Amino acid sequence: MPVVKEVEAVYLRANIAYDGTDFRGFQIQARGRTVQGVLEQALARLSGVPVRIVGAGRTDSGVHANGQVVAFSLPWRHDLATLRRALNAILPDDLAVLQLELAEGRFHPRFSAHSREYRYFLWRGEVRSPLHERFSYHVSGALDFALMQRAARILVGRYDFSSFGKPPAGNNPVREVLQSDWWQDGRMWLYRVEANAFLWRMVRRLVMALVWVGQKRWTVEQLAAVLAAKDLAMAPPPAPAKGLFLWQVNY
Amino acid sequence: MPVVKEVEAVYLRANIAYDGTDFRGFQIQARGRTVQGVLEQALARLSGVPVRIVGAGRTDSGVHANGQVVAFSLPWRHDLATLRRALNAILPDDLAVLQLELAEGRFHPRFSAHSREYRYFLWRGEVRSPLHERFSYHVSGALDFALMQRAARILVGRYDFSSFGKPPAGNNPVREVLQSDWWQDGRMWLYRVEANAFLWRMVRRLVMALVWVGQKRWTVEQLAAVLAAKDLAMAPPPAPAKGLFLWQVNY
Repeated sequence: MPVVKEVEAVYLRANIAYDGTDFRGFQIQARGRTVQGVLEQALARLSGVPVRIVGAGRTDSGVHANGQVVAFSLPWRHDLATLRRALNAILPDDLAVLQLELAEGRFHPRFSAHSREYRYFLWRGEVRSPLHERFSYHVSGALDFALMQRAARILVGRYDFSSFGKPPAGNNPVREVLQSDWWQDGRMWLYRVEANAFLWRMVRRLVMALVWVGQKRWTVEQLAAVLAAKDLAMAPPPAPAKGLFLWQVNY
Repeated sequence: MPVVKEVEAVYLRANIAYDGTDFRGFQIQARGRTVQGVLEQALARLSGVPVRIVGAGRTDSGVHANGQVVAFSLPWRHDLATLRRALNAILPDDLAVLQLELAEGRFHPRFSAHSREYRYFLWRGEVRSPLHERFSYHVSGALDFALMQRAARILVGRYDFSSFGKPPAGNNPVREVLQSDWWQDGRMWLYRVEANAFLWRMVRRLVMALVWVGQKRWTVEQLAAVLAAKDLAMAPPPAPAKGLFLWQVNY
């Protein structure tokens, strides 16, 4: 009988990026192309065994990522540079593994994270731009930057964000926002928000609320009142998914 | 008999932008979706008559534009802001009219232009980026920026560029390059080249030549020798279309 040499499994952590346009979100589903589904398939193809991945954040359909973090274990006998190269060669153009490293056994992409940073891109050209269509939300017309900045700043702190999103069933709706500000890069306005964690669709609802403040549909005081009300019925609709990026997860 | 009021035709000049990914170039063809075809259809739909447009540059399949200029005349009784809004409402997401104004009768997008500026985007990340895939060419590995800058600068001047492109049948292959330089914006390297006009695929061949210099496949002196040879057989292959933008046309 031949001796079959077992390949040891390694536990890995990967930083991945994706263009969310053609994915139905991160999490695997019965139907539809998902980031998790495509990545698990590629890992299975390379390792010869089924592989399950765990991600730091379940981005919605259409949301992009520049620094999503995932972990998985798989049998692999070569080095990690080879694995990364092989993965990027078979993954589709809209998904790539940026970094790959050995993880400690106790590492968990979601539970080990102490904060997440999202960014939202607002295109401020007078007309829509075909070159920015895919990765930003076009808002033309008057928008008061200083008011939006003031409104963004009042979100920093530890609050019950029930007016802006739903926590997972039965969970605590309190989140701690560590950074919340706007800056301009030419005709692109960028919003950066960092928190220990976010409620479902919270970033996109916050962005729309800030745009409403910029458009003077809401005053900064009204935004504060909505936050204090802890009532999702008072929330504005979420801003479009295509402007949102999971930018970085901090451990 | 009712009196039919004739609508006067106006001669217009438009700055347009497009994501070239899903177009088979600018110029209308028997088959395939082209910028000219889609824009003429929209203009015909709004004005009720067939409309022909003339463009400043016939960008190839996959090449983008930020500042393509076109001219056309059509019967229109409302103001130009209304026409622009109506056009952008019916044009697809990957094509937009940025500016629209009355043109003088003697204006010709191609013949009146005194120079064109193209830009080329090179993504220098270690691995390919799904977020930059659509609008840049990924070149990993060592690339000597200073050498590429030196090589770019020697292209400025009035030369016979036969080694880098074909002129229209029987035409003069001499072009005057006014600007040719690189700069860096994070991990994106940008090349800007302005000339009175360009030969077919000249920009993409120049870019590839400059990349070869950066990779030390060619010395700056070899590039100069290829330019002096006036022989298209010595040209490198064109860099991918997706990194190229018709940036601006100057009148």
